[in-house]
Amino acid sequence: MQIYGAIEAGGTKFVCGAGTGPDDLEAIEFPTGSPDETVGRAVSWLRESTGGKVVAVGIGSFGPVNLASGRITSTPKVAWRNFDLAGSVCAGLGVRVAFDTDVNAAVLGESRWGAARGVSNSLYLTVGTGIGGGAMIDGRIVHGLTHTEMGHIRIPRDSVADPFAGVCPYHGDCLEGLASGPAIEARWGVEGRELAAEHPAWALEARYLGLAIADYVCTLSPERIVIGGGVMRQNRLYEMVRREVERLLAGYVERLPEIVRPGLGERAGVLGALALAQERS
Amino acid sequence: MQIYGAIEAGGTKFVCGAGTGPDDLEAIEFPTGSPDETVGRAVSWLRESTGGKVVAVGIGSFGPVNLASGRITSTPKVAWRNFDLAGSVCAGLGVRVAFDTDVNAAVLGESRWGAARGVSNSLYLTVGTGIGGGAMIDGRIVHGLTHTEMGHIRIPRDSVADPFAGVCPYHGDCLEGLASGPAIEARWGVEGRELAAEHPAWALEARYLGLAIADYVCTLSPERIVIGGGVMRQNRLYEMVRREVERLLAGYVERLPEIVRPGLGERAGVLGALALAQERS
Repeated sequence: MQIYGAIEAGGTKFVCGAGTGPDDLEAIEFPTGSPDETVGRAVSWLRESTGGKVVAVGIGSFGPVNLASGRITSTPKVAWRNFDLAGSVCAGLGVRVAFDTDVNAAVLGESRWGAARGVSNSLYLTVGTGIGGGAMIDGRIVHGLTHTEMGHIRIPRDSVADPFAGVCPYHGDCLEGLASGPAIEARWGVEGRELAAEHPAWALEARYLGLAIADYVCTLSPERIVIGGGVMRQNRLYEMVRREVERLLAGYVERLPEIVRPGLGERAGVLGALALAQERS
Repeated sequence: MQIYGAIEAGGTKFVCGAGTGPDDLEAIEFPTGSPDETVGRAVSWLRESTGGKVVAVGIGSFGPVNLASGRITSTPKVAWRNFDLAGSVCAGLGVRVAFDTDVNAAVLGESRWGAARGVSNSLYLTVGTGIGGGAMIDGRIVHGLTHTEMGHIRIPRDSVADPFAGVCPYHGDCLEGLASGPAIEARWGVEGRELAAEHPAWALEARYLGLAIADYVCTLSPERIVIGGGVMRQNRLYEMVRREVERLLAGYVERLPEIVRPGLGERAGVLGALALAQERS
């Protein structure tokens, strides 16, 4: 069996993995520092943990990214702006690198080994520090002209009931601005994990996620939607979001998608990066 | 050259065509009546105009439809509900029938012969009696679990500035409910074609279309967006919509899609149906 490497490159932490799949994945994580130091650490670990035997590496990266050049682009993290992430890893290890967004890697991982297995049209959403989505249509990851930015759609809101202005530095009250972890914390003054299951924050969160998902259903017609990310640790959200989506679509769409938890838990990103390496090398 | 048949099946009118492409297309249109009468008329014309030589027929249909069964499903037009459109045409002519939605046919037509030529990721929107969109990703029509219903996304609105409740029987103020031709007529009391170019209706229309297109850009990342339909006869809308999309995305998306007029004019649907017949038979 050939050993593949995986890097889930996040703005807060890097997760590196090596192996052939979920059963033998070895992984390590560390905080994201400067680009050179962080990539150096990832490269060293991949080399040492595999005895130099890694044949290709997949990277699922935070963004926005330029997929053609393998670079991070307009991130607020200044040191990473325009950094050649794919090229640095390739140069460090001397093997082929497959590069995509973190959520595109995650939808591939969930599709191969997780909750989206057996389905050709699926969507992976993460609701955490940011909100993002990766879609698979007819078994292929959707890229389009650049890549999707599903967290930045605009949704209707009642600014009397929720006067919060939103935290997105680009758009204010786009979905990410209203419903990401930092939005919840800024609106209610405490982190989501400190809010009780009955707190009104969750009904509002379910409403915003339901509106977004109803839009994705109209635009992409997925069969299954996997939602991960730190905010979804509030388990009641899954059922609340399902009900919102059903109410919003109002019987117009013939078949509603299933809305499920990740099958790979928090390993969707790193296993997706591993699948990228296997698929494109 | 083999002669193909095409049917653009609309709720108001049917357009039938025969030929091999835009240069030799012969077409006829007539009002949509009862299913049996309308299909009978289409079948007779296709048989007679081609001397019985048609080798396959493509249908781009109003909906919602069930693509697997070739049937119209939950339309408000009661006589057409659950009607086996593809089967009836197939039985009438004894040739293979390729069946898809009207907007999916149109994106294929524009992609092959019109304004979306040379682009792998495109979107065709129609803004008329209804609003709908067909997407092409990596050169393939997006179907998903059923088919897209892009006109029914929810967009933000200022219900003080625009207290109009929307005309969609399912969702009220979804995009189609707020921005279709019937919505314009119900809001302002006259048809759109009677509203002067400076009327505030058009700024509002551009805002709603801009919000929707910004969402499609975030979700699908198209390279080119072709907008057709009766409402777009107000030519100023194209530039107004481009400006809205640019303003709304606020520099976050690296490359904006081009927003253009149909290259096939009002023949996108029927030529798309012809392309369907050629591609799938």
